Amino acid sequence: MNHTGRRPSINDHDHLVYGGSDVVELARRYGTPLHVVDESALRRNYRAFLGAFRLAYREVSVFYSYKTNCVPGVLGILHEEGCGAEVVSPYELWIATRLRVPPSRIIYNGVNKSVDDLRGAIQHGVGLINVDSAGELHRLSDAAKALNRRVNVGLRIDPAVGWVAHFGLSPDVDRIAALVETAGENRLLNIRGLHAHMGSGIRDTRDYRKAVEVMARLSCKLRETSGIQIDQFDVGGGFGLPTVKTLTLRETVGYKLFNRPPPEPQVGSCPSIESFGQVITSVLRECCARYALREPRLLLEPGRAITGNAQILLVTVCEIKRRKNGTAYAITDGGMQNIAFPLSYEYHTCLLANRVGAPSTERYFVTGPLCSPEDLLYRNWKLPELREGDVLAIMDAGAYFTSFANNFSYPRPPVVTVSDGVSRLVRQRETFEQMTAVDTFPDPLSRAPGGTGLP
Amino acid sequence: MNHTGRRPSINDHDHLVYGGSDVVELARRYGTPLHVVDESALRRNYRAFLGAFRLAYREVSVFYSYKTNCVPGVLGILHEEGCGAEVVSPYELWIATRLRVPPSRIIYNGVNKSVDDLRGAIQHGVGLINVDSAGELHRLSDAAKALNRRVNVGLRIDPAVGWVAHFGLSPDVDRIAALVETAGENRLLNIRGLHAHMGSGIRDTRDYRKAVEVMARLSCKLRETSGIQIDQFDVGGGFGLPTVKTLTLRETVGYKLFNRPPPEPQVGSCPSIESFGQVITSVLRECCARYALREPRLLLEPGRAITGNAQILLVTVCEIKRRKNGTAYAITDGGMQNIAFPLSYEYHTCLLANRVGAPSTERYFVTGPLCSPEDLLYRNWKLPELREGDVLAIMDAGAYFTSFANNFSYPRPPVVTVSDGVSRLVRQRETFEQMTAVDTFPDPLSRAPGGTGLP
Repeated sequence: MNHTGRRPSINDHDHLVYGGSDVVELARRYGTPLHVVDESALRRNYRAFLGAFRLAYREVSVFYSYKTNCVPGVLGILHEEGCGAEVVSPYELWIATRLRVPPSRIIYNGVNKSVDDLRGAIQHGVGLINVDSAGELHRLSDAAKALNRRVNVGLRIDPAVGWVAHFGLSPDVDRIAALVETAGENRLLNIRGLHAHMGSGIRDTRDYRKAVEVMARLSCKLRETSGIQIDQFDVGGGFGLPTVKTLTLRETVGYKLFNRPPPEPQVGSCPSIESFGQVITSVLRECCARYALREPRLLLEPGRAITGNAQILLVTVCEIKRRKNGTAYAITDGGMQNIAFPLSYEYHTCLLANRVGAPSTERYFVTGPLCSPEDLLYRNWKLPELREGDVLAIMDAGAYFTSFANNFSYPRPPVVTVSDGVSRLVRQRETFEQMTAVDTFPDPLSRAPGGTGLP
Repeated sequence: MNHTGRRPSINDHDHLVYGGSDVVELARRYGTPLHVVDESALRRNYRAFLGAFRLAYREVSVFYSYKTNCVPGVLGILHEEGCGAEVVSPYELWIATRLRVPPSRIIYNGVNKSVDDLRGAIQHGVGLINVDSAGELHRLSDAAKALNRRVNVGLRIDPAVGWVAHFGLSPDVDRIAALVETAGENRLLNIRGLHAHMGSGIRDTRDYRKAVEVMARLSCKLRETSGIQIDQFDVGGGFGLPTVKTLTLRETVGYKLFNRPPPEPQVGSCPSIESFGQVITSVLRECCARYALREPRLLLEPGRAITGNAQILLVTVCEIKRRKNGTAYAITDGGMQNIAFPLSYEYHTCLLANRVGAPSTERYFVTGPLCSPEDLLYRNWKLPELREGDVLAIMDAGAYFTSFANNFSYPRPPVVTVSDGVSRLVRQRETFEQMTAVDTFPDPLSRAPGGTGLP
């Protein structure tokens, strides 16, 4: 067991077992690169997350952040458990629809909702639209009037903690109150929620505490000025995972310029979901008491906290190359720049799946298949001695790996879910035809290639 | 005209004209985000490139680097002109095949060629396979024997200039000579080429000079030790474009940590294609004279130099948001993190396409539509005053924009080619169905979503 508290499950062959399956067998059966999702872990994570909040607070709803890992076969499992959907685009709303998520279990967020997007969301009857700006509130008002449909509205505010960015309404209570007063004249806008989202991979409960305080103050103000009752506090997502850590600036410089691998994250430096739940619900209760507010429903939009550690990415070592200066490269079939982008800014454990017990005695630059010197999964990483054919497991690949995956020279990998040792392919490896389904190939008659061949 | 020497073409409406077309009209017709390819510029670039080398050297062949912009509708135009294909994966070879590129006009490169990939390339009869390692040479030897097919082989060497990475054979002349002597026993391996590739966006001719010198020395050695006649020198690609520049470390820190936009690249700091041609061909001739070598065929694998400045990416400003601290955000429908990744490490000019003549009096953080504070196309960038509905043109988007594009919450953009004012859609915007063609949606009967809706 290492610092991250991870105790990999191993079978008699010294192979990594995940979701009850020998992952080396999975790699052989489905080929690599391959995403493997542990269905039980997924269900367990959802239940633990909901439970951590419900334990201390009555009205809690959880909406999985689709953008984190937008794989229908994974989302379907979460919806079976009762999880809602947090979507930020027409594409994501379409997926939720195809997954038959009840509209009232969908929250529509995002920074770039057009009039058409808003109309679509209203017509679909989504449970809540979190408005990002004054302009958007006007557009939503117009769209609701045009459709003559009542809509549940939340206001995304910038809680002045976490991300410094363009999201939400500036935390100017008077200005927001004035805006709400104007918008409130349209009786079709049912302004009932406040929303904040502070970041990604947050390892500190204070951000949430601060956000809840800002929301409570604003809620109180809105009751006074507009008589509006805010009954939904949406504290967003961003909950960190103990085993994954965003590299600090110092770590990034050390790693990328001087090939110094970052230290493993310390489990203790990240609050458990239970702590997040305890802190957020207690501050919420305190604030409600302080401002004499009726306790609102607590909405949560986790991504990484649910899927992050329930998925791994398997790659195969295709060749070992040693340079004269002693540098050893392990070339694999899955690259950072095409399918494992989070490795460029996050710490992820790497296990040798087919000899898990082997001691880490060597250092490798683990590369992908792309023709780019930056296509490095790991730099100067401590690993057991590697051989061609070895299978590496990149752990905690369930957040932002599939989201950022591209078609740089290769198809994107398949996804299998495993449960009690039974695997199910929920996303196929792309075929070349699928990769070019949007393309028009030149007419073979009109466009004959010219030139002469190599002698 | 600015430092980059760019003189945008403008019509009476003060709109940007590209390939003879009003790009604001194109944005209206096809929607944004949208890639626009100037077909004439593409043809001109190819001819100028080939001409710059042919002017001074007899035997020259050009192979477009597919990975740079793997759009069949664009590649087809280049092949019409007689350009060959440089491919690095089975997918790219498949595209060349569908585009009916004569096999002898295809070079197969790459760091990760499996036995199956090599067999496929041999069976297809590609003109040249550039081998990346000793292990690969053995695999190729086996594959050729199994198929009993003769194959043209180049050896990729690390010329010890440019990229420090895992590519090619270490530049140890004796070791390479020994390797070639062993491999040469298989008469099916026709070892006739040397290959090097030094980087991307190279703005210095010295890298190529050095590589040619290394190749010539090695060529001479191989003639002595193995009696092998190297008759193809492949100096790779990486030729810089005057108007695009990779940010230096200093510029990156200033830009990303302190929001100091990098300076515009100075056109004069990048050799013209004519200079690249002149320097490379003259050093090649000098070296051949020095080592008494018969002048080899010169192979070139440009990417950016051909397509980089023949394509632009149009995005629409959806909302302007001003923060209390004075920061102005222009939120657009195309993000850095989904469809414009090169903006994170390269300088690209940004033009206000619908008021090209307007003076740049303001500063904006131009964002994309994603829910991430890093989804910034431009930070603190000098631009004219922007309004909702404005169309921005990101210039020189013909290298690595489409390659790195992903499906993060949104479909990838369409591509139109324009020629003499006539536009042609060569890549459609992805439909949601296409985006999920690889996915299995849970069976609606067995998997009913649970949970209750928002009140």
